[in-house]
Amino acid sequence: MTTLPLTHPEHPRNLIPELCRLFYQQGWATGTGGGISIKLGNTYYLAPSGVPKERIQPDDIFEVDKDQNVLVAPAPERNLKVSECTPLFFNAYRMRDAGACLHSHSQNVVLISMLCEKEFRISHIEMIKGIVNPETKKALGYRDTLRVPIIENVDFEKDLTASMAACMKENPHTNAVIVRRHGIYVWGATWQKAKGMVECLDYLMEVALKMRAAGLPWEVNDAEAELGGEKLIQKRPRQE
Amino acid sequence: MTTLPLTHPEHPRNLIPELCRLFYQQGWATGTGGGISIKLGNTYYLAPSGVPKERIQPDDIFEVDKDQNVLVAPAPERNLKVSECTPLFFNAYRMRDAGACLHSHSQNVVLISMLCEKEFRISHIEMIKGIVNPETKKALGYRDTLRVPIIENVDFEKDLTASMAACMKENPHTNAVIVRRHGIYVWGATWQKAKGMVECLDYLMEVALKMRAAGLPWEVNDAEAELGGEKLIQKRPRQE
Amino acid sequence: MTTLPLTHPEHPRNLIPELCRLFYQQGWATGTGGGISIKLGNTYYLAPSGVPKERIQPDDIFEVDKDQNVLVAPAPERNLKVSECTPLFFNAYRMRDAGACLHSHSQNVVLISMLCEKEFRISHIEMIKGIVNPETKKALGYRDTLRVPIIENVDFEKDLTASMAACMKENPHTNAVIVRRHGIYVWGATWQKAKGMVECLDYLMEVALKMRAAGLPWEVNDAEAELGGEKLIQKRPRQE
Amino acid sequence: MTTLPLTHPEHPRNLIPELCRLFYQQGWATGTGGGISIKLGNTYYLAPSGVPKERIQPDDIFEVDKDQNVLVAPAPERNLKVSECTPLFFNAYRMRDAGACLHSHSQNVVLISMLCEKEFRISHIEMIKGIVNPETKKALGYRDTLRVPIIENVDFEKDLTASMAACMKENPHTNAVIVRRHGIYVWGATWQKAKGMVECLDYLMEVALKMRAAGLPWEVNDAEAELGGEKLIQKRPRQE
Repeated sequence: MTTLPLTHPEHPRNLIPELCRLFYQQGWATGTGGGISIKLGNTYYLAPSGVPKERIQPDDIFEVDKDQNVLVAPAPERNLKVSECTPLFFNAYRMRDAGACLHSHSQNVVLISMLCEKEFRISHIEMIKGIVNPETKKALGYRDTLRVPIIENVDFEKDLTASMAACMKENPHTNAVIVRRHGIYVWGATWQKAKGMVECLDYLMEVALKMRAAGLPWEVNDAEAELGGEKLIQKRPRQE
Repeated sequence: MTTLPLTHPEHPRNLIPELCRLFYQQGWATGTGGGISIKLGNTYYLAPSGVPKERIQPDDIFEVDKDQNVLVAPAPERNLKVSECTPLFFNAYRMRDAGACLHSHSQNVVLISMLCEKEFRISHIEMIKGIVNPETKKALGYRDTLRVPIIENVDFEKDLTASMAACMKENPHTNAVIVRRHGIYVWGATWQKAKGMVECLDYLMEVALKMRAAGLPWEVNDAEAELGGEKLIQKRPRQE
Repeated sequence: MTTLPLTHPEHPRNLIPELCRLFYQQGWATGTGGGISIKLGNTYYLAPSGVPKERIQPDDIFEVDKDQNVLVAPAPERNLKVSECTPLFFNAYRMRDAGACLHSHSQNVVLISMLCEKEFRISHIEMIKGIVNPETKKALGYRDTLRVPIIENVDFEKDLTASMAACMKENPHTNAVIVRRHGIYVWGATWQKAKGMVECLDYLMEVALKMRAAGLPWEVNDAEAELGGEKLIQKRPRQE
Repeated sequence: MTTLPLTHPEHPRNLIPELCRLFYQQGWATGTGGGISIKLGNTYYLAPSGVPKERIQPDDIFEVDKDQNVLVAPAPERNLKVSECTPLFFNAYRMRDAGACLHSHSQNVVLISMLCEKEFRISHIEMIKGIVNPETKKALGYRDTLRVPIIENVDFEKDLTASMAACMKENPHTNAVIVRRHGIYVWGATWQKAKGMVECLDYLMEVALKMRAAGLPWEVNDAEAELGGEKLIQKRPRQE
């Protein structure tokens, strides 16, 4: 899709505020954290930085071009700056031709990032099928191991740009990068796919945390996947 | 009921979108997962496949006949496919004369499916009384053991059709089938009954997970049910 | 207050549906469970039985007199029965001159009822101050021990009437009775007080469950209440 | 900002009810607990005391001057009293020139207050960057240790006034004071900053509780922050 009337509920000026409210309600964008960016035609729409994400209005959205130059900014008296995540979102736009890129501060991601060394791995959960492998352009299968790489956090968001790009180069199979003790960047060919994947990833990490508390392993083989109860629990998670 | 005006809020074209939003809010249908189907007269109404369930509109609903032939489809430019759960919903319509069939990806179900071998069993919780036994046509009693059978997950949703049907034949007492590491199918004579049962089942599984973490057994006898604290905790769950 | 226009949002015909939606959202009245009753003047307003509580409309409400005779019923084609909790609500109206009585199936209550033998006890939490002792007519203090008695569950809701009444006679200090493995009845002089108390009680039970998981005792003395961390944890809960 | 039309959604008469509903939904102000106060020009706006916080209307708001004299009160037939938190909110207004002060009864805070002796400490979580140090006027960095001091609870809210003030004097670095087994007071230069900080603090305490359950330490050094899994878990929390 390359154009939509401004009045359409799925125009990025309307959709970004709506998705920000949804992210806020799910605890992914409280305290001004998190961020959302959507591409329409050749324009990239971005939320402002450092404001309550659930209160953003259509007129608060920035438009930038492919070189991150601001084309349209909110009224000066609103005193808004463009999202600090902008260069990170552009990793996804430039390296993966993404249609949208989302950033969540979900507590599930933060906990998972402390429980895994280099990547989060999980297999044999139905919701894995909601994740697309961008190399093969196919959805993962139920029996596949989902792998989400982790990069280290730094002092300033923009200084993550190079390490996120390097991680994406090393992991062509991934649509998401976890930032340790911080959150996750997730992108997709369309905003629907990016939103669906951030929901699947968050679900899988939340299930993984509950599995760990119950003593259940995250990555199993086909035979183990058909076990239940003590027989399964005796296989300890490999992640730890 | 065999007919309702299209403007009625409980017409399936309006009700399915409303219930999908509710399922989404409860975490049962995120990331395009889950599904809902309702029968009215001789028509079966189905949600589309692989779209954000909380954004479905009345015009996105499919109508099929008793042989799963599509009678009415959304506009071609919407580019929608009928729910992949269709043949599974029809197990409930054909074998049990159901009025509605619901599919949830609840995390509670997924966890329970890893903690039980062949079926989930729990007794002596008031909410068990919300479950009807389709053989006796009566609600379970407080002292009864609820049993929900588990089938193994497979690569493609439609390939669950035969094993779900076999499970239903073997378990005439059940209104629900758990799919291991995936979710649950629940049906009832009406959408109200199906919805009430999916809520009761989810509540019971969530309580069971909390009981397990606290060291409390899931299935007790009448005398044990009146115990509290250490006296009860020393009876370990049988499920594991 | 003895009268209110039917259009007033706090008239029981409007307020009961609103509070039922709130109870549903909090997980206290899913699967047709739970119930709400409010008195206005000499009329007692009651929700119908066995229907999705979050979808009740003003016309679905029953009015009964002080002898539980139905004065006004919903239209016959609605095919509704008055709440099965009616005789239990009337324990509160008759024995305590209550203005409202609420019934929740909260999972927190159900778990607490399995972890305590005869009553739930907790002290030194600010929210205890939201509970009124009906003997002294005063709110509890921060240092007081809240005690909520537990009765055993039975097969049919109405058969709890006598044991609830006996429990209320033995425990004149209480505004609430826990039904083991079932839920809680809470009443107050007004609907605002009853609602405030059910919220405080649920909060206290939820905190108690989290305290137990963290190894923290529920009932402490003034000196212990000022401890934090390991010094406090070494005092084990008395309840178990 | 010193003035706003009464019809503006961010005028304190509209904003306090809106934020009270938000606090209620998050479980920070149930059972009439919690409170919110906002300054506009030379007027201090306060919620009423002891009422359901999620039902407050614009006409229920009190206006007081810098000496806590009531300038405008709700209609006498509403029978409302000004928030019992008033003198505590004024600690923030007088000692820190705050623009808003919020009081939450969050369960996360109550649990944290039982697990820490003198203060809550956590480091190396991105959301720490949402907290401003009022001495330096700068946001904390990712590597900084956030410290939130704890005072002891007393029988009456107003009797916390002196110990909260003493705590604020001893801890010029803090924008928040935890009251043990009770809740938290959080203030900021504007309502947006105060709201953002209460959200960050609650997030950090909730994460800390989950970290503790998983065996993860709250305060780490730079090298430890890059560990994941067992290597990190072997560093036990210092708080206990």
